[in-house]
Amino acid sequence: MKNKMTLEERYKEGFAKLKEIDGEAGENVINSLKGIADDLGEYIIGFGFGEVYSRPNLDLKSREIATLGFLCTLGTIPQLKVHIKAALNVGVKKEEIIEIFIQSSLYVGFPKALNAVFAAKEIFEELGIL
Amino acid sequence: MKNKMTLEERYKEGFAKLKEIDGEAGENVINSLKGIADDLGEYIIGFGFGEVYSRPNLDLKSREIATLGFLCTLGTIPQLKVHIKAALNVGVKKEEIIEIFIQSSLYVGFPKALNAVFAAKEIFEELGIL
Amino acid sequence: MKNKMTLEERYKEGFAKLKEIDGEAGENVINSLKGIADDLGEYIIGFGFGEVYSRPNLDLKSREIATLGFLCTLGTIPQLKVHIKAALNVGVKKEEIIEIFIQSSLYVGFPKALNAVFAAKEIFEELGIL
Amino acid sequence: MKNKMTLEERYKEGFAKLKEIDGEAGENVINSLKGIADDLGEYIIGFGFGEVYSRPNLDLKSREIATLGFLCTLGTIPQLKVHIKAALNVGVKKEEIIEIFIQSSLYVGFPKALNAVFAAKEIFEELGIL
Amino acid sequence: MKNKMTLEERYKEGFAKLKEIDGEAGENVINSLKGIADDLGEYIIGFGFGEVYSRPNLDLKSREIATLGFLCTLGTIPQLKVHIKAALNVGVKKEEIIEIFIQSSLYVGFPKALNAVFAAKEIFEELGIL
Amino acid sequence: MKNKMTLEERYKEGFAKLKEIDGEAGENVINSLKGIADDLGEYIIGFGFGEVYSRPNLDLKSREIATLGFLCTLGTIPQLKVHIKAALNVGVKKEEIIEIFIQSSLYVGFPKALNAVFAAKEIFEELGIL
Repeated sequence: MKNKMTLEERYKEGFAKLKEIDGEAGENVINSLKGIADDLGEYIIGFGFGEVYSRPNLDLKSREIATLGFLCTLGTIPQLKVHIKAALNVGVKKEEIIEIFIQSSLYVGFPKALNAVFAAKEIFEELGIL
Repeated sequence: MKNKMTLEERYKEGFAKLKEIDGEAGENVINSLKGIADDLGEYIIGFGFGEVYSRPNLDLKSREIATLGFLCTLGTIPQLKVHIKAALNVGVKKEEIIEIFIQSSLYVGFPKALNAVFAAKEIFEELGIL
Repeated sequence: MKNKMTLEERYKEGFAKLKEIDGEAGENVINSLKGIADDLGEYIIGFGFGEVYSRPNLDLKSREIATLGFLCTLGTIPQLKVHIKAALNVGVKKEEIIEIFIQSSLYVGFPKALNAVFAAKEIFEELGIL
Repeated sequence: MKNKMTLEERYKEGFAKLKEIDGEAGENVINSLKGIADDLGEYIIGFGFGEVYSRPNLDLKSREIATLGFLCTLGTIPQLKVHIKAALNVGVKKEEIIEIFIQSSLYVGFPKALNAVFAAKEIFEELGIL
Repeated sequence: MKNKMTLEERYKEGFAKLKEIDGEAGENVINSLKGIADDLGEYIIGFGFGEVYSRPNLDLKSREIATLGFLCTLGTIPQLKVHIKAALNVGVKKEEIIEIFIQSSLYVGFPKALNAVFAAKEIFEELGIL
Repeated sequence: MKNKMTLEERYKEGFAKLKEIDGEAGENVINSLKGIADDLGEYIIGFGFGEVYSRPNLDLKSREIATLGFLCTLGTIPQLKVHIKAALNVGVKKEEIIEIFIQSSLYVGFPKALNAVFAAKEIFEELGIL
């Protein structure tokens, strides 16, 4: 992965990738870091989207399915909501998102499954697709 | 989901699904519960595989990708190893498994990503596909 | 556990058990899943209450004490609140609930112990038993 | 709780309580801290057993049931094993211990339930009560 | 550590230490426990501050840096906020607090790093130091 | 942070930083990824050490104290051991490391505090400094 690309160029690629996947919700996260931890936003864009999400070998739909798995297990609801939207953006259907959370009950228990479903309910309502 | 199927019939369907997905590794888990908590094994088969894994709306490959996400985040290595094999069984490529764990570093940090990769390394070696 | 009972019959038994243990709070959880993940509610009732909570060998009071242990450690406050009510319903005294959370400080640290006590305070106030 | 008892006296009471509950397994933990973090052992005895475990309002059997809930959820297997023995010491039956772990599958998922059952299997074998 | 000091004297020392480190925010936590779990507040003061925080061998600034590490990883935001203030009280600069949370992204992932930064943002705004 | 440095140059700086902080233990981690997930090793070096650990505003000793806090809480023992060595390398005294873990008992409970102390005991023995 180490190469001739500069960190600045990586950031630009990452920002395009962020907009493709997370849309407005992703930009809002980055903006909310302004004046407090700007560099953290740059790392999320540059490293997260410019390096990791730009990798080959796994399509974006699968990446978001895995990410719903990480975030549902962590129980970090604000980030889970951002990625429920991201999953929809890259082609995961809403029925598939609910299935992932139903399946999570086997591995992380019903409480975290419930909280993930309630997060999805809020996002689907916000987007008018419930 | 509530219907005329008996728990016994559900168990039979679950056992067939367990063998399809987890193969020998899944059967070993069930056998290791004999004489200590047989019913827990029956719930994993009957509820886990007979009900949840048999649901429509999400293909088995996506189910295993999500499951790698749950287990990598939990950090329960023995179960992660079973599902690395299960993922291979249902068509997730080994490069995709590694990608999922590389991506996990963004959401759960490098330590859990490393431990997941080391688990994959052991399984790939065991299967002679490293 | 596998037997001639149908999933429908198991559901009916589970629903009766849910009402016995969780009362109105449990029904509210199930209702909140309507239209988004109805089946998840059916699994909680059918598998959770119809199979697991209906098992012999451990009385309901002990089951709820263990459950307060699981949920206090997970830190999932909405479900902890439901089970603080459930514990009261099956005969755990409010002094015992507070003792469990004080004891939790040894195993999961003061922050999660504090958040569990604050959840109990809210429930006790709501029920007029503070 | 603040009173005229000295920390030294509290330690003595705690040590008696530790032996009552944890037996030899508890003493081994304290001994393993000698020369590296002796004071941590004294806090476990003095604060943990001399203050918390000596409190009224919750019997020792209920305290150990809650503790199995904390430790099964945390997934810290060495301490879970110590408290499986402690639970047996204070009158929790082995069937009840297994029930607690079967029930844990609802709240923390099957992987942690499985790892807790395997820990119990090891302890029951060691004690010749499988 | 076991000595001639009484629990009452230890409590007094702990209360002075609590005020030195946590200031008003710490007292608020203790007050919020009144009437529900007073003894938990006494343990936090007596054991937490009277014994652990009063130990030699590690300065208070380092103690608070470690504590930000514990709480950011646990994700218990109310307690993290109390200790962001405590860290400032004992001389950790606000730029250092943000650095700790940026570094946390390597070990616990971006979601918990983000939630910690947002907690800091709220505290810095409340204190007028953003 | 985005600038004219190439990813290749960032990697070189990161590798020097890795050797300064983690020494041989860090290199072993990177080597263990060869042939299975080489890029994950490059991200740890390039992003982790080349970008994050190279930041100003927080000295390396404080960075390692925070990292012991993250890893003790996560409970990922192999990475905790690497950073116990790293902490010693950058000037954290062994008494300070033990103090951090004793203090962790307040926030994450005694089980994780114990497991961290036992990890330290192993490393101190390996290094002949117990």
